[in-house]
Amino acid sequence: MEGVACLVGECGLLLQAVCAVLSRTRGVRSNSSTEILQGLLEMGIRGVTVSDVRGYGAQGGSTERYEGSEFSEDTFIAKVKMEIVVCKEQVEPVIDKIIEKARTGEIGDGKIFLIPVADVVRVRTGERGVHAERMIGGLSDKLPPVITIS
Amino acid sequence: MEGVACLVGECGLLLQAVCAVLSRTRGVRSNSSTEILQGLLEMGIRGVTVSDVRGYGAQGGSTERYEGSEFSEDTFIAKVKMEIVVCKEQVEPVIDKIIEKARTGEIGDGKIFLIPVADVVRVRTGERGVHAERMIGGLSDKLPPVITIS
Amino acid sequence: MEGVACLVGECGLLLQAVCAVLSRTRGVRSNSSTEILQGLLEMGIRGVTVSDVRGYGAQGGSTERYEGSEFSEDTFIAKVKMEIVVCKEQVEPVIDKIIEKARTGEIGDGKIFLIPVADVVRVRTGERGVHAERMIGGLSDKLPPVITIS
Repeated sequence: MEGVACLVGECGLLLQAVCAVLSRTRGVRSNSSTEILQGLLEMGIRGVTVSDVRGYGAQGGSTERYEGSEFSEDTFIAKVKMEIVVCKEQVEPVIDKIIEKARTGEIGDGKIFLIPVADVVRVRTGERGVHAERMIGGLSDKLPPVITIS
Repeated sequence: MEGVACLVGECGLLLQAVCAVLSRTRGVRSNSSTEILQGLLEMGIRGVTVSDVRGYGAQGGSTERYEGSEFSEDTFIAKVKMEIVVCKEQVEPVIDKIIEKARTGEIGDGKIFLIPVADVVRVRTGERGVHAERMIGGLSDKLPPVITIS
Repeated sequence: MEGVACLVGECGLLLQAVCAVLSRTRGVRSNSSTEILQGLLEMGIRGVTVSDVRGYGAQGGSTERYEGSEFSEDTFIAKVKMEIVVCKEQVEPVIDKIIEKARTGEIGDGKIFLIPVADVVRVRTGERGVHAERMIGGLSDKLPPVITIS
């Protein structure tokens, strides 16, 4: 997308949050979150933050009551939200891996959002930026070196 | 806000996350989350992600113990967080609808944050950008066409 | 970081979300979230949004089953996610306070992410931007005035 290239080129933003909101209740997808985590770990991605969320407004949601109301729009799908902050060069491999593990081809597979991240701080050491994001044995050790123009 | 116009003009960022953190425990607001969801659905907004969070530091929080501590700052308000990724032209109508449904005029009504989104990927099809955000019958079908200068 | 300065200088983005994902299960850290909240409140930061999340892929996670699977990667650490939207000049004091309260020096202390925020709307009044972020008695009342070039 043009926006990203521009931000990186002009402003030096080298980090992005890959935020995937994926169904975890139907069919083959019930175990997809663990499969995705395993797939990411195998490719060297660490530090995935996971939380349970509800998806509203999607087609075919399971009809359950929420806080006592019962109008017809009151349907939701239990979803899992995965947040992974990665360096720019890791974004596409991570997206590909999530799609490989999460896609069923049915409506409701979920979406992946890319959010610009201005900086990362590792609490233990105070390191910032790409140094704070990187972990020993992580994907950045497996990828060819990236030439950065400073 | 100038920042948004600038980002769109220079960098082509056409997507934003509207992130509303709203009270869900007091008075008229106890059902506001379902009212907001219904209101958004009626105007064609789909794909709302909802999660339960705690708001700290606001005035008048209900005093409850959290993890056994009991100092006086240990008050929180049960809140609901709604995240909606929309095209640029949908941001203001969505904000207006949330305010219409959530405002009581009391302290603690909540806040709406606008977060830049660099890209969206629909897992099912691999579509990206505004095409991935749009849904059949959604708001983008109801709005007049937007002229995009490429 | 250059990216932030650039965004502020060119685009006027004056707000950032400080998003801390911190361990809350081991040793001295079991009470750190309340200590952090107290520390932030004392320095005038209000409006912290907290949620419970799971951290995957970190070293030394406690082995627990998630959704019935039992492969060796299925380890997670219970974490707490704190989200605080602040003005640009408040970012570094907030990071310093979180590190002061959350650092143990052990692997797994957690990370802080800085996310650009395009705008904030206070639902109660409709106020936007830095006016919506500020609270009476908050940090902005305690800091020296910032000269803004408009």
